[in-house]
Amino acid sequence: MANNFHILLLNGPNLNMLGTREPEKYGSQTLPEIVAHLEAEAESLGAVLDHLQSNAEHVLIERIHQAKDTVDYILINPAAYTHTSVALRDALLAVNIPFIEIHLSNVHAREPFRHHSYLSDIASGVICGLGADGYSYALQTAVKRLSQSN
Amino acid sequence: MANNFHILLLNGPNLNMLGTREPEKYGSQTLPEIVAHLEAEAESLGAVLDHLQSNAEHVLIERIHQAKDTVDYILINPAAYTHTSVALRDALLAVNIPFIEIHLSNVHAREPFRHHSYLSDIASGVICGLGADGYSYALQTAVKRLSQSN
Amino acid sequence: MANNFHILLLNGPNLNMLGTREPEKYGSQTLPEIVAHLEAEAESLGAVLDHLQSNAEHVLIERIHQAKDTVDYILINPAAYTHTSVALRDALLAVNIPFIEIHLSNVHAREPFRHHSYLSDIASGVICGLGADGYSYALQTAVKRLSQSN
Amino acid sequence: MANNFHILLLNGPNLNMLGTREPEKYGSQTLPEIVAHLEAEAESLGAVLDHLQSNAEHVLIERIHQAKDTVDYILINPAAYTHTSVALRDALLAVNIPFIEIHLSNVHAREPFRHHSYLSDIASGVICGLGADGYSYALQTAVKRLSQSN
Amino acid sequence: MANNFHILLLNGPNLNMLGTREPEKYGSQTLPEIVAHLEAEAESLGAVLDHLQSNAEHVLIERIHQAKDTVDYILINPAAYTHTSVALRDALLAVNIPFIEIHLSNVHAREPFRHHSYLSDIASGVICGLGADGYSYALQTAVKRLSQSN
Amino acid sequence: MANNFHILLLNGPNLNMLGTREPEKYGSQTLPEIVAHLEAEAESLGAVLDHLQSNAEHVLIERIHQAKDTVDYILINPAAYTHTSVALRDALLAVNIPFIEIHLSNVHAREPFRHHSYLSDIASGVICGLGADGYSYALQTAVKRLSQSN
Amino acid sequence: MANNFHILLLNGPNLNMLGTREPEKYGSQTLPEIVAHLEAEAESLGAVLDHLQSNAEHVLIERIHQAKDTVDYILINPAAYTHTSVALRDALLAVNIPFIEIHLSNVHAREPFRHHSYLSDIASGVICGLGADGYSYALQTAVKRLSQSN
Amino acid sequence: MANNFHILLLNGPNLNMLGTREPEKYGSQTLPEIVAHLEAEAESLGAVLDHLQSNAEHVLIERIHQAKDTVDYILINPAAYTHTSVALRDALLAVNIPFIEIHLSNVHAREPFRHHSYLSDIASGVICGLGADGYSYALQTAVKRLSQSN
Amino acid sequence: MANNFHILLLNGPNLNMLGTREPEKYGSQTLPEIVAHLEAEAESLGAVLDHLQSNAEHVLIERIHQAKDTVDYILINPAAYTHTSVALRDALLAVNIPFIEIHLSNVHAREPFRHHSYLSDIASGVICGLGADGYSYALQTAVKRLSQSN
Amino acid sequence: MANNFHILLLNGPNLNMLGTREPEKYGSQTLPEIVAHLEAEAESLGAVLDHLQSNAEHVLIERIHQAKDTVDYILINPAAYTHTSVALRDALLAVNIPFIEIHLSNVHAREPFRHHSYLSDIASGVICGLGADGYSYALQTAVKRLSQSN
Amino acid sequence: MANNFHILLLNGPNLNMLGTREPEKYGSQTLPEIVAHLEAEAESLGAVLDHLQSNAEHVLIERIHQAKDTVDYILINPAAYTHTSVALRDALLAVNIPFIEIHLSNVHAREPFRHHSYLSDIASGVICGLGADGYSYALQTAVKRLSQSN
Amino acid sequence: MANNFHILLLNGPNLNMLGTREPEKYGSQTLPEIVAHLEAEAESLGAVLDHLQSNAEHVLIERIHQAKDTVDYILINPAAYTHTSVALRDALLAVNIPFIEIHLSNVHAREPFRHHSYLSDIASGVICGLGADGYSYALQTAVKRLSQSN
Repeated sequence: MANNFHILLLNGPNLNMLGTREPEKYGSQTLPEIVAHLEAEAESLGAVLDHLQSNAEHVLIERIHQAKDTVDYILINPAAYTHTSVALRDALLAVNIPFIEIHLSNVHAREPFRHHSYLSDIASGVICGLGADGYSYALQTAVKRLSQSN
Repeated sequence: MANNFHILLLNGPNLNMLGTREPEKYGSQTLPEIVAHLEAEAESLGAVLDHLQSNAEHVLIERIHQAKDTVDYILINPAAYTHTSVALRDALLAVNIPFIEIHLSNVHAREPFRHHSYLSDIASGVICGLGADGYSYALQTAVKRLSQSN
Repeated sequence: MANNFHILLLNGPNLNMLGTREPEKYGSQTLPEIVAHLEAEAESLGAVLDHLQSNAEHVLIERIHQAKDTVDYILINPAAYTHTSVALRDALLAVNIPFIEIHLSNVHAREPFRHHSYLSDIASGVICGLGADGYSYALQTAVKRLSQSN
Repeated sequence: MANNFHILLLNGPNLNMLGTREPEKYGSQTLPEIVAHLEAEAESLGAVLDHLQSNAEHVLIERIHQAKDTVDYILINPAAYTHTSVALRDALLAVNIPFIEIHLSNVHAREPFRHHSYLSDIASGVICGLGADGYSYALQTAVKRLSQSN
Repeated sequence: MANNFHILLLNGPNLNMLGTREPEKYGSQTLPEIVAHLEAEAESLGAVLDHLQSNAEHVLIERIHQAKDTVDYILINPAAYTHTSVALRDALLAVNIPFIEIHLSNVHAREPFRHHSYLSDIASGVICGLGADGYSYALQTAVKRLSQSN
Repeated sequence: MANNFHILLLNGPNLNMLGTREPEKYGSQTLPEIVAHLEAEAESLGAVLDHLQSNAEHVLIERIHQAKDTVDYILINPAAYTHTSVALRDALLAVNIPFIEIHLSNVHAREPFRHHSYLSDIASGVICGLGADGYSYALQTAVKRLSQSN
Repeated sequence: MANNFHILLLNGPNLNMLGTREPEKYGSQTLPEIVAHLEAEAESLGAVLDHLQSNAEHVLIERIHQAKDTVDYILINPAAYTHTSVALRDALLAVNIPFIEIHLSNVHAREPFRHHSYLSDIASGVICGLGADGYSYALQTAVKRLSQSN
Repeated sequence: MANNFHILLLNGPNLNMLGTREPEKYGSQTLPEIVAHLEAEAESLGAVLDHLQSNAEHVLIERIHQAKDTVDYILINPAAYTHTSVALRDALLAVNIPFIEIHLSNVHAREPFRHHSYLSDIASGVICGLGADGYSYALQTAVKRLSQSN
Repeated sequence: MANNFHILLLNGPNLNMLGTREPEKYGSQTLPEIVAHLEAEAESLGAVLDHLQSNAEHVLIERIHQAKDTVDYILINPAAYTHTSVALRDALLAVNIPFIEIHLSNVHAREPFRHHSYLSDIASGVICGLGADGYSYALQTAVKRLSQSN
Repeated sequence: MANNFHILLLNGPNLNMLGTREPEKYGSQTLPEIVAHLEAEAESLGAVLDHLQSNAEHVLIERIHQAKDTVDYILINPAAYTHTSVALRDALLAVNIPFIEIHLSNVHAREPFRHHSYLSDIASGVICGLGADGYSYALQTAVKRLSQSN
Repeated sequence: MANNFHILLLNGPNLNMLGTREPEKYGSQTLPEIVAHLEAEAESLGAVLDHLQSNAEHVLIERIHQAKDTVDYILINPAAYTHTSVALRDALLAVNIPFIEIHLSNVHAREPFRHHSYLSDIASGVICGLGADGYSYALQTAVKRLSQSN
Repeated sequence: MANNFHILLLNGPNLNMLGTREPEKYGSQTLPEIVAHLEAEAESLGAVLDHLQSNAEHVLIERIHQAKDTVDYILINPAAYTHTSVALRDALLAVNIPFIEIHLSNVHAREPFRHHSYLSDIASGVICGLGADGYSYALQTAVKRLSQSN
């Protein structure tokens, strides 16, 4: 319980609108509520969770750069950038930190352009459609895998 | 004449260069000139027009977020982001404000990648190739539709 | 106010059914009502508006042929022929009269085969989804451009 | 036997050549022979069958327009227009009369461009490759469904 | 009335669920009810109808193999295997028995992957969207064609 | 010189505009001038040339129907219908008269949609880009082939 | 803790080889080990877990049929059938039981034909690349959602 | 001559019909005749040949599973499953036994969907169009390669 | 009759086999017979015809290079190189001599890969399916156009 | 043993490098070694084997032309020309000699552009991935088929 | 040596990570080292080099806007924005300054989505795979071309 | 300065026309002038430059074969063969000598078929649009890389 793994949670564009935006698709919890819950869960797992939500591609990229050598695992819900950002992919390749991709809604049940992700093939895993629980599961897997590889 | 509808006009990347950039394609009016004209027209229609031009995708996104509950209609010339920004689409979906998409030039007469828009299918309407008049027509329709639904 | 520009308004197949056909998509005005309104508007702009609706591709083509040397601008809602008629495109190329393409509904929100137009790339501009106002805006632009080029 | 349903049978381009045109593909019956047979069958089912064959897309379209409010079911062999006419589709959508699409030959065994129909997805049903019997089956289904929904 | 043609009716995967599965799409009749009706109809036409429903591709294939030299016509609703089974196609090619393909619902109005059939181009005919009547029409055509070729 | 072959020359939509329409692409001869020249050439070859230009697809189709049993060879410039008319293809298949397809301009040097023809694969031959001489060559070949097969 | 939800776990073809097959891709646990672990977890959540692994498409289909009215949630790792079985999709549509799709490995990092699933768009959620934990997370979500909707 | 290599010969769906099914395409030898010949040839090469033909995908899959650790080389004519079975591919990947893919007819000369194989890229080699000799050549290569790698 | 235009006739791979190769497709005349006929025709038109047939792409290319400044028009039947040789296209672009592309058979009625030509869009015209007469017509047009532009 | 069939073995570009070029892919035997072995095998089968390797497309083509009327069967490893040479295909069509296509390596396991062959659909059979044994098998089949058809 | 050309060097997202990020792909030099070297080289060529690296698309866009009328040539390594940014393309079109596109690694040897560039067709030239030397070569060409056009 | 690296410069089809062919696209220098310049540059870098231009694919291929073990680096402008020659690719793979691909013009600004290269993904680098300087830069990089790896 003293592993002190550093986990970075990243949330992409429009996720600051959670709770107000199409609640039937994304749930009624706000992002701060979800994050608070995850921080507590991380703590209980002996890990530290940092969080950043940004609507700006470059802010996410630069946070990933800073993660190099300080973060052990990344949990990322890239939202719309999933489908359009090669730069985010390159940032993740550049720092070479394992990451899990999470989507709140089931992207496969939506528009065809949401079926392709620039990140999935370099991710450790992908979760979609499980709502905010997806973050929790990703966190658990991250801590478990870090523990195993230590 | 006292409806006081709030209209948000958004202009995407490179539109700050209007008047200097390829005038044979985009006209010789500058963006401030066009906006001044539209503000006056809005006033004459009993509406208030806010304007934002930005080259940054996230600035446009966040202006749309702020529009929630304060803006009645959006007029948007997404410029290059028309063809690449799922995040802008998601922002418009998130706030659920009706909008009209405007292009100064006729995008159908240009490169094939300009024939697809990530916004058109969720817009109320689309105008292209009518120059700055396109904004004016969109404004008139916005006010008219708001008046009718009141 | 004495320019006397000749404007030809063409409406393609099934538009004679306007007002009865899927009013939630196309509005409840009949075509004669729309045309009467436009004729008045044209007159107020010092222009003359001729109108033809036909369900027959060749009737539209031949009206365009006759327009050569007598018509200054064409406003056309090609309806279904938008997506299938190379012959209509060729007629417009043959007479070399500038034209604006208008669609009452937002074709981008409908079946994929309605996303391609054989006319848009040779049009001056395209308006869709603004209902019958689209005609009016096209008329205004036509008169304005003719006035400017005189 | 006194329901008096009105059924409209439409036959598209080149079907006037039936009996002479590639009989190994389309059978040796002429169109008048087929129609006479169907009229009798309709009568025996207590229905009235109107028939129109035309090589002209607009004639078919206008017959469909006239069917509005007078015809209960349409049986249509759109022949070549199956694959090219959005206008015919729009006419059928405009009058909102249920219809069955019939092809004498098996279009799936022919050129690839015959595998797509602009009508099938809005039809009640599709029959192909059963020769003139296809019309008869369509007629029976039309009468049966009208009887059931009465 | 003494022709004694042998007709084989095959029903593919999930059709045993008929009557319970999405009745608005497939009707409320159960498969045994439909088959009983068809057996009676076959008898009245002087034919014998054998029936097999299976969820197993190989069971259908082997039933087709057994049909060689004993069955005169096959009526098949291949259900999901329509779109995925080359093996079923090969079985039908191997025994060289004429067959009609039937779908209860209108596959053209459903997902794009249901628009392609591995069987249609080698079938005598295809019926879709006419509910259980489709089987009956196919049966009538089968008997008629067998009678004519005798 | 007394073979009296009957040749039918068909010209599709917009070809009545020849001489006025984009002369740099189609030449400055009018259609009547071209036809007069061809009639004389036909006569000198001992053949009779009938001509029809129509902007209406069905008029062309019906002229082809009438050609059955009276016309020996068809020369056709289908213009825009080249790329869109399955019905014209079907008419030519129905009467089973050999034909040559002619285009005045080089369709391969124009828009991509002009690179596909619904007629070429069933034609005896295709000529494009040789201007009005293309008709003359087609006529010569038609007469020659008819003479040889007599 | 006394909800007694019935959960069905289905494993598709080749998953009986787990532990021996490419352990670097699928882990070294055998399927019985994984299932035993899940059964215990289900019990601790007050649910009952039934399990079936089959290499036969029809056996999976028929198990799904039997689940109708007795099973509350399905967890399915369709393995290779993910990419080829419309019949499995139809079975799941027919019984209308919510389900979660699980893949042990990250299918997005493998051959392109593994990027398409016939099930994902009708699933509640999809998990891939998280190894056997994926089953556990799916189980937790299933129980949670069933509890909430009770 | 005492190597005693174990070779497994698998034949997919419809191959039990050999000799009766389209003999001009597949030859007139029956499968038992072919297998008997190969068993003799295997014996003469000091190898043991096991054979299984099945129309059931899962039976083939399970026979491959059993081959693990007991079979040295697989010869497989997957017939229709060549083009549709990812599960068969996965079974072969799971046991990691080298195999050669054989087709009696030249699949490249048949329908386009027969040009793609889910197995070829992971096979040692592919033979098609050489009739039953293809099996013999594959057998010879299998024994030779096993001998060399011993 | 004294214009002395220099015309270069080029024939691509396998055309040396004319007369022996698939005569039903290419006619029974040999290439020397065709060329002799064309030389005489050229002479009668006051032109000089040079001829080269080669199966080697580079020989054709280098003959085109030599044509620069000495040849007025090229007639080319590129045969198989039509569909595969960008180098031939570049040679023709490099010398900038007008040319007509000729095919003896109707390439549009053959395999799909024969429907694309790397030369057609830069040719003056294209003739196909008219047999050896195609060369003669091309020669006549070449001389006529050279005469007109002199 | 006195049939004296004439077999032509053709090897395409870069195959002269065999033994030095990527031996892990193509084996370590040189081409002369392989050919010597095949010549002996041919002799033992009572046949005569001629061989030509060339890096030049036209040399291969012309050798095929010369084969007309003197060669009974062709064995060809077209190497890179497999994927790019329509001219080679045309040469083989022109002489109408049966041939087998051989590839040393498994082309299906390499770049996608190696998956298409311009020859396979007109070949008697195709062998790939069996190394130099592929030539031997092709030779055996050629002699066998010639013997049978004599 | 006194031309004083102003050259702008732009580096896109993630290039600030150079030297640390995948050095086997991008080299071990850091960006400041590369830039220092280029500034010296520019000075030696009598030019002034300005540099900007940014992970933000809009910062790059606005730097390009400012370049209008002050910068003579742009050297740009757009990194990931190469493949996704129409806005960057529009900025370069708007200021109409010639530019060269540089990539450190060989993008053609990487993922397919890296094979398309939104900039290449409007660039003067493109260099890839030559590491940091690519910048130097681009600089030399820029200065040379500016000198020549002066 | 005494490294004596051997560099082979290869120029493909039509490049012998340089200086005369479309000078606005390819510059006005002739190939001998360019080569002379490069030979001098190579000498100054202590390298020896061999040059071959050929319009024949096989001559280029065979020169590459001869380069094995004698040439250290290849500079190649494959011209039209870039887009069509798998054989050239195979030759370069066979000798396994590093090479740089050079194009004088910007191929990305030309016809779509020039956007694909059969060589780029196996090249060390690619330069296009920098005119003859491209050769010089490639030479410098070749010498530099050879020096570094020595």
